[in-house]
Amino acid sequence: MKTPARWLFGAHVVEETLSSGRVKSLELWIQRDRGKNSSELARLAKDKGLGVRWVGRRDLDRLSAGEPHQGLAILVAAPGAEDFEEFLSSMPAHERSKAVLIALDQVQDPQNVGAIARSALCLGAAAMLVPDRRSAGASQGALSASAGALQKIAVFQVGNLAQTLRSLKESGFWIYGADMDGKPCWDVRFNKPFVLVVGSEGAGMRPLVRAQCDEVAAIGQAPGGVSSLNAAAAAAVLLYEAVRQTRG
Amino acid sequence: MKTPARWLFGAHVVEETLSSGRVKSLELWIQRDRGKNSSELARLAKDKGLGVRWVGRRDLDRLSAGEPHQGLAILVAAPGAEDFEEFLSSMPAHERSKAVLIALDQVQDPQNVGAIARSALCLGAAAMLVPDRRSAGASQGALSASAGALQKIAVFQVGNLAQTLRSLKESGFWIYGADMDGKPCWDVRFNKPFVLVVGSEGAGMRPLVRAQCDEVAAIGQAPGGVSSLNAAAAAAVLLYEAVRQTRG
Repeated sequence: MKTPARWLFGAHVVEETLSSGRVKSLELWIQRDRGKNSSELARLAKDKGLGVRWVGRRDLDRLSAGEPHQGLAILVAAPGAEDFEEFLSSMPAHERSKAVLIALDQVQDPQNVGAIARSALCLGAAAMLVPDRRSAGASQGALSASAGALQKIAVFQVGNLAQTLRSLKESGFWIYGADMDGKPCWDVRFNKPFVLVVGSEGAGMRPLVRAQCDEVAAIGQAPGGVSSLNAAAAAAVLLYEAVRQTRG
Repeated sequence: MKTPARWLFGAHVVEETLSSGRVKSLELWIQRDRGKNSSELARLAKDKGLGVRWVGRRDLDRLSAGEPHQGLAILVAAPGAEDFEEFLSSMPAHERSKAVLIALDQVQDPQNVGAIARSALCLGAAAMLVPDRRSAGASQGALSASAGALQKIAVFQVGNLAQTLRSLKESGFWIYGADMDGKPCWDVRFNKPFVLVVGSEGAGMRPLVRAQCDEVAAIGQAPGGVSSLNAAAAAAVLLYEAVRQTRG
């Protein structure tokens, strides 16, 4: 299944996307009177085989539908399930045997998506799996909360997360879920390679996704306190605990 | 040193503050034509010894200087260093010997202050120390990011954090700092009771604060990744690691 391409806006985002080479880009739009490093960006884009269009401000306004664009927009191909399979199979065996992946199930708050991407990259995760476009982190809010991480970590949209998890399990990955009613995470034995699945703050993981988990882990709570950690904090802690146990 | 009282705005915040009893409140302003549960709130406030004023919308607009108030404002006494000493000395010895405190040094982003309060409450911290009014978390942003935690955890403004840490150390607390250039936190031996000090994302801890730390702990980073975790994620992970080591 192919997922649709999407537009990203703003100078920082476009420059990062062009230079990182992480994401396959298709086309660059530059506002005619933008000045600055525009010719340089156009040259870089042409060298990479992108189409380049010099457009008026109003064309960009229409394209971005109100999102601030600073005179720049880039069309990126959203990598999907097929690309993820390619990504996995091109991973050397010694890397794959220690791989850490993070999967988001219904996490849609852009702040959380961005923060989780940042923690994932920082704690050594190789890729992030998201089930749909809404959580794909294309929004400016997610990108800025990620402090650049969403341009650096590989993000794949997999339409059927439960199915992807099942096939990962068959190929040797352990699947750990994060949920308040799970086992205290210090009592869970984490093994590599693994996928950590983080559900939404309200609803948690969907039942079919949860059913794929080898174990469900929770973070110790203080009695009488707030009932749960924020999804991004929980993801950071569980990823940390899993990495701590399986380091070296 | 006494710290000044401050105004909190908005229905949710005022109701939480009135009912939690965590914070000493002095006065309640209600917009005359607000309706809803206004009389009930006025009665509750009077029962608790607060002054109640029925005011016009414009009075509240002026008081809140543009912050949304939804017809309600409450004046709370900001607990300061003296209150913190009282808080500590009223803690039973068996609680005090296991106490976990969190101190913020120059963390001013309301989102981070709120998120840290939530993690702190959730992971069993007894109180949060903040050095100035700006990081005191009175803002609507911090309150909403904390998901109610800022009304539930004790927050003290201590004007001189380094001095407070020194006196805590003298009374048996261990002081742990969070900084990227510290020792990997899984190699740090955490002991209770302790204070975890979190610095700002950019500047870290101030030198005088850092000098009070028994150890400075960092979180393992992936090579070539984003240079650091977000301050709130780092605080959650380090607090978790310290609690994990000293549990039971």
